Amino acid sequence: METAVIILAAGQGSRMQSDLPKVLHRLGDAPLLAHAQRLALSIDAARRVVVTGHGGDAVAAAAHDADADVELVEQAEQKGTAHAVDQARDLLGGFDGDLLVLYGDTPLITEATVAAMQSRRADGDAVVVLGFEADDPGGYGRLIRGADGGLDAIIEAKDATPDQRAVRLFNSGVLLAPAKLLFDLISEVGNENASGEYYLTDIVALARARDLPCGIVTCPEAETLGVNSRADLARAEAAFQARARAEALENGVTMTDPDTVYFALDTVIGRDVVLEPNIQFLSGVTVESGATIRAFSHLEGAHVSDGAVIGPFARLRPGAEIGGGAKVGNFVEVKNAEVAQGAKLNHLSYVGDASVGEEANLGAGTITCNYDGVSKHRTEIGDRAFVGSNSSLVAPVRVGAGALVASGSVITTDVPDEALSLARARQVNKPGLATRLFQKLRADKARRDAGET
Amino acid sequence: METAVIILAAGQGSRMQSDLPKVLHRLGDAPLLAHAQRLALSIDAARRVVVTGHGGDAVAAAAHDADADVELVEQAEQKGTAHAVDQARDLLGGFDGDLLVLYGDTPLITEATVAAMQSRRADGDAVVVLGFEADDPGGYGRLIRGADGGLDAIIEAKDATPDQRAVRLFNSGVLLAPAKLLFDLISEVGNENASGEYYLTDIVALARARDLPCGIVTCPEAETLGVNSRADLARAEAAFQARARAEALENGVTMTDPDTVYFALDTVIGRDVVLEPNIQFLSGVTVESGATIRAFSHLEGAHVSDGAVIGPFARLRPGAEIGGGAKVGNFVEVKNAEVAQGAKLNHLSYVGDASVGEEANLGAGTITCNYDGVSKHRTEIGDRAFVGSNSSLVAPVRVGAGALVASGSVITTDVPDEALSLARARQVNKPGLATRLFQKLRADKARRDAGET
Amino acid sequence: METAVIILAAGQGSRMQSDLPKVLHRLGDAPLLAHAQRLALSIDAARRVVVTGHGGDAVAAAAHDADADVELVEQAEQKGTAHAVDQARDLLGGFDGDLLVLYGDTPLITEATVAAMQSRRADGDAVVVLGFEADDPGGYGRLIRGADGGLDAIIEAKDATPDQRAVRLFNSGVLLAPAKLLFDLISEVGNENASGEYYLTDIVALARARDLPCGIVTCPEAETLGVNSRADLARAEAAFQARARAEALENGVTMTDPDTVYFALDTVIGRDVVLEPNIQFLSGVTVESGATIRAFSHLEGAHVSDGAVIGPFARLRPGAEIGGGAKVGNFVEVKNAEVAQGAKLNHLSYVGDASVGEEANLGAGTITCNYDGVSKHRTEIGDRAFVGSNSSLVAPVRVGAGALVASGSVITTDVPDEALSLARARQVNKPGLATRLFQKLRADKARRDAGET
Repeated sequence: METAVIILAAGQGSRMQSDLPKVLHRLGDAPLLAHAQRLALSIDAARRVVVTGHGGDAVAAAAHDADADVELVEQAEQKGTAHAVDQARDLLGGFDGDLLVLYGDTPLITEATVAAMQSRRADGDAVVVLGFEADDPGGYGRLIRGADGGLDAIIEAKDATPDQRAVRLFNSGVLLAPAKLLFDLISEVGNENASGEYYLTDIVALARARDLPCGIVTCPEAETLGVNSRADLARAEAAFQARARAEALENGVTMTDPDTVYFALDTVIGRDVVLEPNIQFLSGVTVESGATIRAFSHLEGAHVSDGAVIGPFARLRPGAEIGGGAKVGNFVEVKNAEVAQGAKLNHLSYVGDASVGEEANLGAGTITCNYDGVSKHRTEIGDRAFVGSNSSLVAPVRVGAGALVASGSVITTDVPDEALSLARARQVNKPGLATRLFQKLRADKARRDAGET
Repeated sequence: METAVIILAAGQGSRMQSDLPKVLHRLGDAPLLAHAQRLALSIDAARRVVVTGHGGDAVAAAAHDADADVELVEQAEQKGTAHAVDQARDLLGGFDGDLLVLYGDTPLITEATVAAMQSRRADGDAVVVLGFEADDPGGYGRLIRGADGGLDAIIEAKDATPDQRAVRLFNSGVLLAPAKLLFDLISEVGNENASGEYYLTDIVALARARDLPCGIVTCPEAETLGVNSRADLARAEAAFQARARAEALENGVTMTDPDTVYFALDTVIGRDVVLEPNIQFLSGVTVESGATIRAFSHLEGAHVSDGAVIGPFARLRPGAEIGGGAKVGNFVEVKNAEVAQGAKLNHLSYVGDASVGEEANLGAGTITCNYDGVSKHRTEIGDRAFVGSNSSLVAPVRVGAGALVASGSVITTDVPDEALSLARARQVNKPGLATRLFQKLRADKARRDAGET
Repeated sequence: METAVIILAAGQGSRMQSDLPKVLHRLGDAPLLAHAQRLALSIDAARRVVVTGHGGDAVAAAAHDADADVELVEQAEQKGTAHAVDQARDLLGGFDGDLLVLYGDTPLITEATVAAMQSRRADGDAVVVLGFEADDPGGYGRLIRGADGGLDAIIEAKDATPDQRAVRLFNSGVLLAPAKLLFDLISEVGNENASGEYYLTDIVALARARDLPCGIVTCPEAETLGVNSRADLARAEAAFQARARAEALENGVTMTDPDTVYFALDTVIGRDVVLEPNIQFLSGVTVESGATIRAFSHLEGAHVSDGAVIGPFARLRPGAEIGGGAKVGNFVEVKNAEVAQGAKLNHLSYVGDASVGEEANLGAGTITCNYDGVSKHRTEIGDRAFVGSNSSLVAPVRVGAGALVASGSVITTDVPDEALSLARARQVNKPGLATRLFQKLRADKARRDAGET
């Protein structure tokens, strides 16, 4: 049976103490919302709807970034979770399959958990609710099992009897049910409660009243961690990173200290990659098998090929394509540039809007001057070219294959293949002048100091 | 009632294995002593006295740095805590208020704890002692409660009966009492004990002998953590950082991994600031709301305004004033410089003793040559000026508003507003010469290598 | 009695998911194997034999690197631990002392543990087995004690009775016995078991059958941690670092956050050294008393003298010799260079294959151009020389004592002592040209943009 997913993302999140809508706070360098969206995509959901509210335009844009085919509905007033789902009635009311309700602020649910819920549905439960066990009950509703082990009721903390209060199985809010049944039940949900809101939870009682069987799937508490404060966000980040690190280790990645490597939601790391401590991967990074990322490196939107060595102290920015066996060393920044196989950018360089040929070698302090104050321009460096230290390449410019740029040159016009190019002044040594100059500077200073007192 | 504070800071701390006096070891980038002093200031203590001993001059200087109005007395010989307090008799013997005894090596006591002690005093206890509960009794004295819940006695570990030894409420050494009473009781303290020292603890027995009511306030064990070894210091730093991180999260700061951000005692961070992993704040830093500090950044004595982006891999040194929306990028060092709103220092630059105008743009590799070997000089860069990459600005020098410095120039004289300035040699390309040169170098090397064998 | 050590290092380690032989994975920046070898050297073992197998040549080379006098034997087929030891029969069969069996993938055993085993041998036990207590029994064999407290039998998990299964004392595999006895017992070991391998463990039953007394020494579980997966390797690294950090604290090293400092197997740090957070020591580093290593620094093969300050953001590579009180500041890389006492390399520099004289000062952006595309050459900078910012020193070249190099110069020939050297173009200011140029660039861009649409 096909599944549609609806993700509730309308809340304000006032406890975040932030001007940014809650679901746009970042986890694994992606919006919180993108995590739920990624889950929806990974289970091949046929339809994917996001309910926006606070910060609607920004949330809608982010939702679209993560999933070009996402459908959006707005919940203009926040009148509860059932009301939120109900906004999608026009879109999904006639959907002939199951509807999975997820939350934009609950980023850690796994595919395996959803599969377990789908399996319960296949076994005949009409409504399947995701529960979790925890020591600290918080204010969560209790999931009460019937004699058959199914879900008999969800009891809110404040309404629970002492026996019910002792139950340690809690409601995550995530549920799965046939779309048509779900909207039918929602029609019957009322708002006669303290906050005057329509609670999605109430559909379980309504289903049970119809004698429909309901089921429970449980998952580790960490999966259902919802983000309501900055501290929650930091906890969710820690949980996300712990999961990503364990997966990387399992896949044959070496990490000196896994706790100091930060992955993004979409990071891809090959087998036998070595990661030294203190590395930050932001979104869009792929590191192929056999590459090494050394300590204190920062990568975003970059591709690193087999056998390349990055860092320590390297920064790869979006569009950095590093070829096999190439080296990007300390205090080097690469942006929007292809660095071909075997090329070396070993020290203190900025290479932006450029291509660097195979086995080319850029000396320390090489800088591509890609911006003229108005536009960006490209620098091309040919295969086996050798650029002497402290040179400036003023784009648009081309250094030919096998060419040599003398140290300290400012290159403003193309250098032909195999040519030597110089742009520097003749050296003049003035004997004894350093000593006399320092004597003068010290005398000047002494005079100034005396004048000051 | 007014409160005076006396801070005992005379001890040597031999277990630190250090030439530095114990209370000058740093915590949150401030001397240990400064933490107790800050507490004294934050409770508006009318008088603040520090008792120095080992490393007296250095400790006195540090005490003065943290509190310009501090009063200092010397304990020439270390003859116990009562003897240490007694050194302040001339200063505080006539003080018509309470005296709070703190310790220079106990940096984590909170204002709330002192307020609780003051409240007990207001309720009538003559002497109020701060206790803490712990699993590991160490060698601490036990606080024995009377029938009324007050403090009946302090029993040293070695003198305790089995029943007393089972008590898990320990003496921190911190106490509060009327100054006149305290000095009166101290006069009666003897030194008939194994180490021949005068113990402040003994005043409780003396007060109880006079039938004066004594009280206990308890605080978490972490607050009373005293520093006696490097491992203690590392533990205290961890506790200090945990507290600072929790406060920042509560105030609406986003941190990817709070455990990798290090705050100083005086760091101020605004709401909605984003902190990536691995940031070190040393003393004197303020970051305004809405700024972002990216990974691997190091800040000291710097002010960062709203919307500015610092790092990754940036270093702000004392006197860095970064304006709203300005950018200080990777491998950039800023020292004693005002960077105005919207200015960009994006890559590989050193900007020291300088001012950078609004919307000015410094290319990669820009360096202010602020030191001539004898004195430091200033560089001024005007609004909207554009400094090409790899340029050197030899101070004192001014680049005018809207001016353009060509890449690779060494600027030694002022550039007028709106002028273009160049200081570079003409480029000469010599066809084929690179190839011939490399052939020669390889032949030379082959000859050398052959000669070596 | 003399001791010989045999280290089993033939295994493939398929669970590592790696092309690298297991014992060559790195811990504390040394191969796993080197840790066991270092233990053998530290107990003054008279003979030291490594048994290689998978990746034999690479393992043999690494073994030789760590111990020039190591003896090597090959186990061509992996037929069990007794078979592995048996490969050394020709080398050690006649050795007139004890033989200690260690494992190349078990890097954390301590000297104290081996001393305890030797002491049991001296007390008369013929075979001494190292055991450990653990909560999780894994699949480990149980050590069963006899009435006299000695080792009665080793029972494999699958053969254990319920009573034996409840034992929480496990076999580490490490054992000590007279070499001649050991080889004699090994001759009797059979391979009638599920995997058809010869197990070293079986010698205990054979020794007991001869009524020889066997003994147990126990050590903390952490010491016997064996590495079978990347996750194990990360755990072993964490245990190694925890031990190294605790030792450094005990020796009087200050660390803001010990958990962020990474030591190598051979790192030496003096008393009163201050280590800020986030420092990586790779192999071959010595830091003398009183030096400071600031945050975000990366050191390998370097020597730092008393009072020197390194970092933040500094990288010392092999051959960096930093003199007393010298400074290596942010974004500076030093390789194969002696930096004499009091010299300053404060910002954005690359100093390679060089010597820097006493009190010399290199301005920001100074680069030694040590590579001409074919060979490396040396740069010498004399005492008290002052090299202006953004200068390039094209090696081989010498800057004399007390000489001054003007900012932005490219120095290609020697500068005499006390001389001033310049190599730069004259500055030309063109009034109003910046404004006109930017106008033109903006017009060009507008035209391009219009053409694009």
